[in-house]
Amino acid sequence: MELSTMTTAPVGTGSAGTASAYRPTDRTVPSRSRERAHYDREVVHAILDAAYVCHLGFVRDGAPVVLPTLYGRVGERLYLHGSTGSRPLLAAGKADPGLPICVTVTHVDGLVLAKSAFHHSINYRSVVVHGTAYQVTDEDEARMALDALVDHVVPGRSADSRPANAKELAATAVIRLDLDEVSAKIRTGGVNDEPEDLSLPYWSGVVPVARTYGTPIPSADLDPSIATPDYLAAL
Amino acid sequence: MELSTMTTAPVGTGSAGTASAYRPTDRTVPSRSRERAHYDREVVHAILDAAYVCHLGFVRDGAPVVLPTLYGRVGERLYLHGSTGSRPLLAAGKADPGLPICVTVTHVDGLVLAKSAFHHSINYRSVVVHGTAYQVTDEDEARMALDALVDHVVPGRSADSRPANAKELAATAVIRLDLDEVSAKIRTGGVNDEPEDLSLPYWSGVVPVARTYGTPIPSADLDPSIATPDYLAAL
Repeated sequence: MELSTMTTAPVGTGSAGTASAYRPTDRTVPSRSRERAHYDREVVHAILDAAYVCHLGFVRDGAPVVLPTLYGRVGERLYLHGSTGSRPLLAAGKADPGLPICVTVTHVDGLVLAKSAFHHSINYRSVVVHGTAYQVTDEDEARMALDALVDHVVPGRSADSRPANAKELAATAVIRLDLDEVSAKIRTGGVNDEPEDLSLPYWSGVVPVARTYGTPIPSADLDPSIATPDYLAAL
Repeated sequence: MELSTMTTAPVGTGSAGTASAYRPTDRTVPSRSRERAHYDREVVHAILDAAYVCHLGFVRDGAPVVLPTLYGRVGERLYLHGSTGSRPLLAAGKADPGLPICVTVTHVDGLVLAKSAFHHSINYRSVVVHGTAYQVTDEDEARMALDALVDHVVPGRSADSRPANAKELAATAVIRLDLDEVSAKIRTGGVNDEPEDLSLPYWSGVVPVARTYGTPIPSADLDPSIATPDYLAAL
């Protein structure tokens, strides 16, 4: 099944290593599906900016841990945050130099149903970032990062909510991860069946998959005079 | 921000360790947000069965790697698969005893917009599985696992496609992960604002988020007499 290609590392494009693309490294050397991988910064940024939940991987006691968390992007840097009591963030603070992490973002765009089970696949866009996380200790950078995190989920929201106070800021740990060892992987298009399978009596094609937003539900205690913000209609 | 709770480990419920629930371990000991964590098998199974893409974490050269991949569930076991050339699967085959992995599945159900940036949150359902991956070497189990994988994406599809032949089966590595060290974490409901913030002039509430499927797009070369299967309408 082509599904298997989702488990392989991405590969650079011709622009890899240029100002417009990330440089390939040992960790992003391809094992297969070269045609699906991209290093272009614009491609990577677009995939990162279209999501807000990533999967954060780190090593604890020699074993992998993968947790969902939210993130924001500011230029060539990702910001993740959590409670000052959360394990990975504590580790990032204690680790010297920093905490090795892997941040992965995945969009599922379609189900690809082939005549053969083997060629079933998924249309998707994913980005994998390898690097070292460091705690943000500068208060101004932390506040900027938290605004970026909120605006990454709902663009424009940070300016329409109460900023964190000193107590809240002290309870929130922010870590940063520079976008340096980065690659994207994209699968698009239709079915790739074997020619000899085309006459088989099975349906084949693509089922589009998308993330959709429902009608915003105001809090029960919300002042009725406060209208639903335009930035929610834009989602 | 309550978003931070997404980065913490889950915690068992009162039923933890019983026949109906997974037993808590050091790796699933809570650091916070106890009310959001569940060990109940039915809860975990429902979250796993509602998705088909997981994020697979493993350790390579001491650093974490997180890759999106597909999976299927058969009872208390997950099956993941990939090319026999893919790194984690090769590692699972070589590793003795097995390859330590972490498999995480996350659904985003809503955006929770509070009056304060700090209390912004996400409604979500996630499952984290810690364990050791082993390659499936028995051909019958491998075939069953691949059927489960296809049917996990589209229930009923494996019976309506050509099964893998010997060559395809040989090119596909299947790994298994027993559901033993498992926990779920769920955030539902509305905004949890501070009482003193309720009078602030900001909109607050929840924006529902859902995964939706579009109209199936038949392959261009599909025999027009082959109708769209009912199991696609059921998605």
